[in-house]
Amino acid sequence: MEVTKDNFKEVLPSVLSAIENADFVAVDAEFTGLRHHGTSKYCELDTPEERYAKSRAAAQSFGMIQFGVTTFRYVKEKFAYSHATYCFYLLGKAGDILYYDNNSLKFLADNGFDFNKLFKSGLPYLSLAQEAEKRAEYKTQSLEPQMPSPIKVAEENARKFLKETEAKMDAFMVDESQDVLLLPGSNISSFFRKILYNNIAALYQNILVRCVTTDSERNIEIRKFESSASRIKFLEEEREQRLDEKMGFTHVIHKILETGTPIVGHNLILDLFHMIDKMVQPLPEQHEQFKNLVKCNIPTIYDTKLIAKDPPFCVDIPITSLGILYSDLCTKYSPPDFNVEDGYESYNIEDNSKAHDAGYDAFMTGVCFVTMVKKLDGIHWKNKSVIKSKHLAPYANRVNNMNSYDIPFLNLVGADEPMKLVWVNSTFLYVIPLDDIDNKACKQHLKTLHANCPPLVRIRLYGDTGSSKRKSVSDEVPPGVETCASRVQEFKRLKSIGSDQLSKMTLESPSAEEAPPIVSGDNGNVKEL
Amino acid sequence: MEVTKDNFKEVLPSVLSAIENADFVAVDAEFTGLRHHGTSKYCELDTPEERYAKSRAAAQSFGMIQFGVTTFRYVKEKFAYSHATYCFYLLGKAGDILYYDNNSLKFLADNGFDFNKLFKSGLPYLSLAQEAEKRAEYKTQSLEPQMPSPIKVAEENARKFLKETEAKMDAFMVDESQDVLLLPGSNISSFFRKILYNNIAALYQNILVRCVTTDSERNIEIRKFESSASRIKFLEEEREQRLDEKMGFTHVIHKILETGTPIVGHNLILDLFHMIDKMVQPLPEQHEQFKNLVKCNIPTIYDTKLIAKDPPFCVDIPITSLGILYSDLCTKYSPPDFNVEDGYESYNIEDNSKAHDAGYDAFMTGVCFVTMVKKLDGIHWKNKSVIKSKHLAPYANRVNNMNSYDIPFLNLVGADEPMKLVWVNSTFLYVIPLDDIDNKACKQHLKTLHANCPPLVRIRLYGDTGSSKRKSVSDEVPPGVETCASRVQEFKRLKSIGSDQLSKMTLESPSAEEAPPIVSGDNGNVKEL
Repeated sequence: MEVTKDNFKEVLPSVLSAIENADFVAVDAEFTGLRHHGTSKYCELDTPEERYAKSRAAAQSFGMIQFGVTTFRYVKEKFAYSHATYCFYLLGKAGDILYYDNNSLKFLADNGFDFNKLFKSGLPYLSLAQEAEKRAEYKTQSLEPQMPSPIKVAEENARKFLKETEAKMDAFMVDESQDVLLLPGSNISSFFRKILYNNIAALYQNILVRCVTTDSERNIEIRKFESSASRIKFLEEEREQRLDEKMGFTHVIHKILETGTPIVGHNLILDLFHMIDKMVQPLPEQHEQFKNLVKCNIPTIYDTKLIAKDPPFCVDIPITSLGILYSDLCTKYSPPDFNVEDGYESYNIEDNSKAHDAGYDAFMTGVCFVTMVKKLDGIHWKNKSVIKSKHLAPYANRVNNMNSYDIPFLNLVGADEPMKLVWVNSTFLYVIPLDDIDNKACKQHLKTLHANCPPLVRIRLYGDTGSSKRKSVSDEVPPGVETCASRVQEFKRLKSIGSDQLSKMTLESPSAEEAPPIVSGDNGNVKEL
Repeated sequence: MEVTKDNFKEVLPSVLSAIENADFVAVDAEFTGLRHHGTSKYCELDTPEERYAKSRAAAQSFGMIQFGVTTFRYVKEKFAYSHATYCFYLLGKAGDILYYDNNSLKFLADNGFDFNKLFKSGLPYLSLAQEAEKRAEYKTQSLEPQMPSPIKVAEENARKFLKETEAKMDAFMVDESQDVLLLPGSNISSFFRKILYNNIAALYQNILVRCVTTDSERNIEIRKFESSASRIKFLEEEREQRLDEKMGFTHVIHKILETGTPIVGHNLILDLFHMIDKMVQPLPEQHEQFKNLVKCNIPTIYDTKLIAKDPPFCVDIPITSLGILYSDLCTKYSPPDFNVEDGYESYNIEDNSKAHDAGYDAFMTGVCFVTMVKKLDGIHWKNKSVIKSKHLAPYANRVNNMNSYDIPFLNLVGADEPMKLVWVNSTFLYVIPLDDIDNKACKQHLKTLHANCPPLVRIRLYGDTGSSKRKSVSDEVPPGVETCASRVQEFKRLKSIGSDQLSKMTLESPSAEEAPPIVSGDNGNVKEL
């Protein structure tokens, strides 16, 4: 279901209850641009800190204009997943100034994105940090109106106006059926307004005289209250309601965080960074601070692209872009039944015409997730929701690190791995220590890996002289890693020169190279899925 | 007529000939935002240099997404103006990254702007400076293809492919009816591509082997030429054609500059700055350099808002925003006949539902211009096109300086006036010297003013002790100018504190205060017309 400011209020309760009942939510977002050219371009040899800084700059610069949420709930009786999809159009706070990349917007428009709907009816949002600031500000503001000081009314017309208004007010003050008196702005000159604000407001107790704009007509509204306290209560409630409206879409994100519902996305680093920066709090400058922020505030994150890059999926499905992964998983593996949640809207597994709509992409992501974890769980999949699978442990809070030569994923909460994994083929995994880590830590890590891998996978520490078979796999290993582990260090030093050459090597997984992006041209501008 | 990349090629000749035959063009543009908040906000006491810097920053930051041009031509036999209107959707160079203000885009969307059309089919443009750079680059580039070095073809399939392709090529080379051989990309592996680029290309003289992408299919095209020279000629022409396509909308602006057709706009400082920055050359850092640029490259500019702020119009029409000025001029004055140019499209004077469409705004601006100058010319208006009116002299190359307390206009080519003009009422003009200018220059300026003003207007130098009537007009003059001219200097010093208080004074013209902008809210984000 598409959600704009025209139906938000009405739809919100159902969104919140769908999240409340969900095992997990799949999400996807669309942006006004991916990253700046020049220094913000991803480099294959970015350190995690550099990659953090670049992704943070992107999230702070560009707009997030659509956010898709699909809630998934396992219905054990039917061995099926119920789901509901919402696609939110996001405009942000009035007056927000952000960047747009015309390539990105053209790409979205060509894929059917409705920009007219976005700019006419997009939802507002505020970060939770901005909300807290507002509330702190409120505490310092008095809602007690200032004492009005009457002005001199000499001119004939003005005196007549004052007198007539007094008569109206006298009647209004005793009329118990009425709380509000509305004076049409078209008959009120700016001097008459002054009379209302200063003279009328001074004459009567516990009233509120103010301008309200309706259909661009600035009318004067006069409200009466039983006491000064009830006037303040009214103003407080009104202020609260306005803040609530300004929060808009943030209510949805807040619900996900509050319930701790796990979040699944496909190659979701940017989606996550935009979501945090715009709806939680500004992304901190330091990578370590960011990890703390995620650890304390964000539910567990899973990236379907990361799962898809590991065996067994990478063997059958060499291309991990969302659309291809989705259709290949649906045909080569056996997805469970998916049913649209009763009383909700979503997609069907047969739909395939809406790619790059955030709602449909969220739906596809969730289906990929369920189908892959079902496969990993084997015959036991029926017993529980996929989100409870023990096979998910190695993927928790790790997101795919795209266009990276040597770091396949970023750890969102823990320390970055001191070693990288190289799949030589689908059952043979090399572990390459990246920095000078001691042998003990290395061995410890190998144990953890063994525990997480399917039993058939062989794991070797790269450069370990005890490792057998070094010769026999040398044909499959690219030239850069021929000699010893210390050579890996040298790659880091290659940064300044010829790092583009590295793209020809495929260290990351035993899968084939990724397909080119869906549109041709500079793929720095097209969202990689 | 709306112009996008879907009809640009077809429409361009008629646009160019309409400009060629026009007496003047009226223009209007729409932007993705007006200016940044904070330091870029206009201050009422900005110096011309400060205002230049702020407007320049705005033009460099935001996108120009629509440009309307109405050509006007006086047809003396009919005492009527023929006109044609084009409304161009502008997207710019692929990958341009600019700012958008969501308030501005919401305002445009609410007024019917079609953003889907913009992002799908907006026109490209390049500045003339970028075009020149490209051409200089071309001079250093060789179009002579590199000598291919054949690769070893050992594998059975590859040898078969090479052999078959050789047979095809032999037939193609002798077939006089064919210049191009197209090999479908779907059957060609990356190794086969290498065979084509290296082995086939080396086997035949004067051919061109390259990849061409059609419907996202990367096919291989092989062209043959009579000689190496004709191959280079073909590549040169193709490169020229591509550049021509990238120039897009700039061709229209180029035509206006080339023909020296006067440009009329309403409050057009931003329109002009965007146009120069995006289609001519980057706006220079220094205000003086900018004046030189305009003097050397841009035809005469007229700003209808400036004319409307002077008598007699300011007396009858206190509000100078475009829509109100247009309808008031049409009813209170007598516009001549306006006819749509034969074979062209435009608007009629009865249409009134398309405000904030750049085409319609350009049309309204032109009608306002003609109607006002006709009035100034009195009974002689029929003799010639309004663009030749001597009454235009004081307005040439001066643009309205909006939200300024003390500088009503910016001089685009000459020195900024060392004095400001204050209309006390519609026939009484005070001249206030702004800096320490000598008496002689002051008197000289007064003479010029006298010559340009209607005969009934009295002109006085402010602070001149010889000036009579100082007392009698003091009620009409706001408090700030009571004592002497040196007081004006003090306003400049007020910049840092309380300059907002100045907005309550209406020194600029005898007209009433301007109406609030058409939409409510922070008018820093809504284009003032």
